[in-house]
Parts: sequence; C-alpha cells; structure tokens
Amino acid sequence: MKVKDLGEFKLIEVIEHVIGKHGTGAIQLGIGDDAAAWRSNGSIELCTIDTLVQDIHFNLGNTGYADLGWKALAVNLSDIAAMGGMPLHALVSLSLPGYTEVDDIKKLYEGMLKLARKYDVAIAGGDVVRAPQLTISISVIGRATGDTVLKRSAAAAGDHIAVTGTLGASAAGLQILTGKLAPPDGEAISTLRMAHLTPEPRLAEGQLLAKNGVKAAIDISDGLLGDLGHICTSSAVGAEIYAGNVPVNPLVSTVFKEDAVRLALSGGEDYELLFCAAPQVIGVIKNTTDTQITVIGSITDGHPGEVILLDADGNKIKPDEKGWNHFS
Amino acid sequence: MKVKDLGEFKLIEVIEHVIGKHGTGAIQLGIGDDAAAWRSNGSIELCTIDTLVQDIHFNLGNTGYADLGWKALAVNLSDIAAMGGMPLHALVSLSLPGYTEVDDIKKLYEGMLKLARKYDVAIAGGDVVRAPQLTISISVIGRATGDTVLKRSAAAAGDHIAVTGTLGASAAGLQILTGKLAPPDGEAISTLRMAHLTPEPRLAEGQLLAKNGVKAAIDISDGLLGDLGHICTSSAVGAEIYAGNVPVNPLVSTVFKEDAVRLALSGGEDYELLFCAAPQVIGVIKNTTDTQITVIGSITDGHPGEVILLDADGNKIKPDEKGWNHFS
Repeated sequence: MKVKDLGEFKLIEVIEHVIGKHGTGAIQLGIGDDAAAWRSNGSIELCTIDTLVQDIHFNLGNTGYADLGWKALAVNLSDIAAMGGMPLHALVSLSLPGYTEVDDIKKLYEGMLKLARKYDVAIAGGDVVRAPQLTISISVIGRATGDTVLKRSAAAAGDHIAVTGTLGASAAGLQILTGKLAPPDGEAISTLRMAHLTPEPRLAEGQLLAKNGVKAAIDISDGLLGDLGHICTSSAVGAEIYAGNVPVNPLVSTVFKEDAVRLALSGGEDYELLFCAAPQVIGVIKNTTDTQITVIGSITDGHPGEVILLDADGNKIKPDEKGWNHFS
Repeated sequence: MKVKDLGEFKLIEVIEHVIGKHGTGAIQLGIGDDAAAWRSNGSIELCTIDTLVQDIHFNLGNTGYADLGWKALAVNLSDIAAMGGMPLHALVSLSLPGYTEVDDIKKLYEGMLKLARKYDVAIAGGDVVRAPQLTISISVIGRATGDTVLKRSAAAAGDHIAVTGTLGASAAGLQILTGKLAPPDGEAISTLRMAHLTPEPRLAEGQLLAKNGVKAAIDISDGLLGDLGHICTSSAVGAEIYAGNVPVNPLVSTVFKEDAVRLALSGGEDYELLFCAAPQVIGVIKNTTDTQITVIGSITDGHPGEVILLDADGNKIKPDEKGWNHFS
C-alpha cells in the first residue's frame, strides 16, 4: 500500500503503532498531540517539529521570504500554544537549492526573528543542507507554564466546544494568493493575504486556557472540522457543531458570501485554538480575555471521532470537505 | 550572490550574523556548535536538528529504509555526543512522496528505533508531510551529564589533538555503495558499507571526555581536516596534524591502499570524535576507555582556522580536499 492511498492520518497511526511496540520511555503524551511533553526537573517540557515544503505548503511566486520565515516559526509556536505552553528556543533546518539568493535567506531569517522577538524565543541553532527545493523544518522547545498541558485526548461528553477569534481568513487569503478570487477591495485583499502568510500563534490564549482548567485543545491547522475530528478520535467522543454559530471572519463573509462558511469550517491554517471544557470554565475564560471566544457546539457520547454538523433547526448538514489530507 | 557561490560555511556565518543582531536570549552556545545548549532548572539542556535529503545525503538505490532510519537518528545522536551529552527524546519530521510504500516507512522507523532503544532515546513525536522526495529532519533533545559541555570554541594552543576509533571506513563504504570501487573481499565490502550506512554515535566517549575535563570537541561529519578547521576557526587557533599518525581504518588501508589516507583525512561521516586537551588529560582518557584514542597533532598559535598537514619529516603536505562543502 502506498502512502497516498493510506492518507496522512492513517500513516501517523501506523507510525504510532511501530513506535508504540517499543515504548516511548518518559514521554507523557507522545506522538499524536501537537507537541511532545515530558517532565524534567519538576516542570513539563514541550517540543514540536514542523516542516514546510516549497510548492506543497508555500509557493515562492506568491510568498515573500520574510513572510515565509514568520510562518515557518508561527506554525510551531501555534503547536506550543495548543499545549498551553510557553516557547523558549527554536532550531531551524533549512534545505535549499544552491541557486537560492543569500539575500533571500537573510530575509527568511529576518521574518522568523520578527516573530521570535515578539514572543522572546531564541533561535538557538540549526543546520543548512542542499536540496532540490526549499524545505524549512523548525523544532521549538518550550515549557508548560503550570503543572498541566492541554491535550487532544481530554475532551469529555458534556463539554462545550469553543474557538478563539474568527475563522476562514487564512483560506480566503490562499484563494486570493492563488488567483482563484480577486476581491475588488484592496484592503480586504491585503488583510486576508496576511492572515494566510503571517498567522499569529495564540500563545497568551493557550496559557490562559491551561491556567483556567481547560484540559482539551488543538490548534486549527487542518480546518475546524478536521481538527475537531482529531480531538474526538483521541478522546473517543463525538461532537455536534452548530454551523450558524461558527465565527466566520466578517471580511470573509463580505467577500466570499455563500462560500464563507465552508472556508471557516474546512479551510484550515487559521491557527486559532479549538478547545473543550465545562460551560462554566468557558464562561470564566470569556470574562478574562479580550480575545473573541465563541461556543460552537458540544462534545457528545456519540460515535467516537464523529463530528456532526447541524443547521439552525438542528438538522444534520454535510460539510463539503473535512479538513485536509495532506497526501490527497 | 547565490548560496552555491558563497558556500555552506559562509552561509552559516551570514545566518549567525542576522540572528546575532537580535540576540539569542538564554542560549549559552548558540549557532555554530554541534547542538544548542542552555541552562534549565540547574542542568544544561541540549538540542540538535539535522536533515537528510534524498539524492543529496542518501540514495534509495543503495540504501535500505531501515539503515536510513538508523543513520538519520545517528547523525543527531553524534551531535549530542560531540557536546558530551546524553540524548533523551527525538522528534521526527518526514517529508515524503505519496507513492512511498507504507511498509518502507515502517522499516524506516524500525531502523530508527533499533538505535533509539540502544541509547534509551524516546521517539516523542513528529510530523509527516508530502514532498517531491524523501527528506528526514530529526531533532534530538538531550542533557549534559555534568556541569559542562564540549565546545568547538574551547581549543587552546598547546592542546594535543586526538580522535576516537579509526577513520576512512565511511567514505570507503560510500565508494563501494556508489560502485566506484568493488573490493574482491565480500566481508570487507559488507563491513565498509555498514560503516557508511549505520554509523555508531560515540555517546559514551563524549560523556567520558566531558567528565575528564576535555573542553573542545566536534564529531567528524565533514571530514577530519574540515571539522578540525571548524574547531580552529571557532577557537581562533591553528593546528598541525601529522598525516602518518592519523588512525586509518586497517580495512581501508588494505582495500584502498594509497587512497586510504586521503579517505581518512577528508572522507567524512565517520562520526568519530575529534577533541583537544592537555596531554595529561588525554593520557587519563586513554587509561579509562577501551576505545582507541590516537593523538594526531597539536593546537598552535598559528593563523586562526588554519590546519597544517605534516609528513613524517615535519614537511608541510597539501591535502587533496578539505572536508566537504555541501553546496559545491
């Protein structure tokens, strides 16, 4: 069987199975969460790795090197945010063709450093190797700010499901970047493009969730439905989402009209946090932050892993696509 | 200027310069050493990242997936060894084409786990993404076993230079794998191939060096002369090597004859440790380990970064090549 026929998520299960047979030592969470976590000298340490590949995850025809540097680090910081942690150090492995301009590599690092400085993350090392196309692998080491981390596997029936911020802007930005849609409004173009190119990791929010007793969270990279599916699978629960409650980015609603909800549900790469907790816990969080927090549904004791989408009348509706499978 | 015209090591200097301008926070060593190192809760933590790219660092035509998994982890463990540390956790980012066989990915992980189990390293997480060719980025987190780490920048004039084990077998194995040489002896073929495909990280030796007061070390990945050059540049010292003292792998001497010394000096990927210390420190180490330790020269107050190769009569000789530049 080939990887493309099995799909990304099944392949990860196969890898988990191979590794599981041999034990993972002191690892608390291990593969399958946003970051690895283990106890060390009384604190919980976190580490994540993420790779962006040219022409798969980005296109140099529509993405500047500085924005690319920002994003390559941002997707890793978002994984730390999804664990409720604080990032500390980053290591960068660049694979690049020999014909790459040195000035472009400087720009890549400058973009990365702009984000690193914002969150006091040190670029601690890395390596540079030759390759047919540009690939950026970043590993970020972090630490839990308290004695717990947010996990994909901790959602429980009865929890409400909430998200930070609004959804759909990144996917809308990608549509604009790839020329699939050209909105008349120049400011909208710029805002949505930047939502895709330079996402903001929800670090303060992740730490706030952990501090206030939230147990289950994930960052929305694959898409709301896909990532909620990951939580439901890991937690062996079901979920119901009211499509009408999903906080669609207002600019996306204006520009993309009937397509806006689909982008918000399945578009991915918004790097907002999706979390599950008792209603009163979510109430406390809403009162503690200026960040928009929207309840969009509930965790159920339904079929494990199944996410049901409901319209305003409580009727099931079928999403056009469920997150991304990166091999399809 | 293009990356290929600047070269790998100059590019790393450019990147260091960009990062240096913005400070690296709590980092003790930072970019330019084998691993990043920082203090955390009273111990020194280490982290390294290394990437192997298909058709640049390995060829699937002559490398099995299990061996590839071993090597991808080994090169990272070797970086931890070169710091005198103990590896703890590994994160694996695989970029691979959709047509990859799932069974091959299982083999890749099984090879990696074989080495991980040997040194009690937990595969803690990672990610899988699509790419035009197979690329393996591994990040390893470790810890110093004492209160110091081995650095490239700590060599001092008067230090002797020593290496663990013997050199040249990996480069000889690569010549065999690529069909450039076919020795008549089947056992030699197998031994040298395996030296290239499944190198052994010198973890116990690195820890022994740190424990016994060695300050300066590097692992031999680029080649003896190239890696000694890195130490000399970082430490702002010169070095003299007696070519006749270099411990050439005996099998390489037998099979490759007059080419053997060149392979030992410049071949690379032996993953032995090269270290610099006072003669009495090296004496103590020789008496404490069964691993072959050979003194091959001295650190001098010569031109910073310059490595001079001497014959048995003390005359300068010119090496054919100085390590690898991965972009040339």
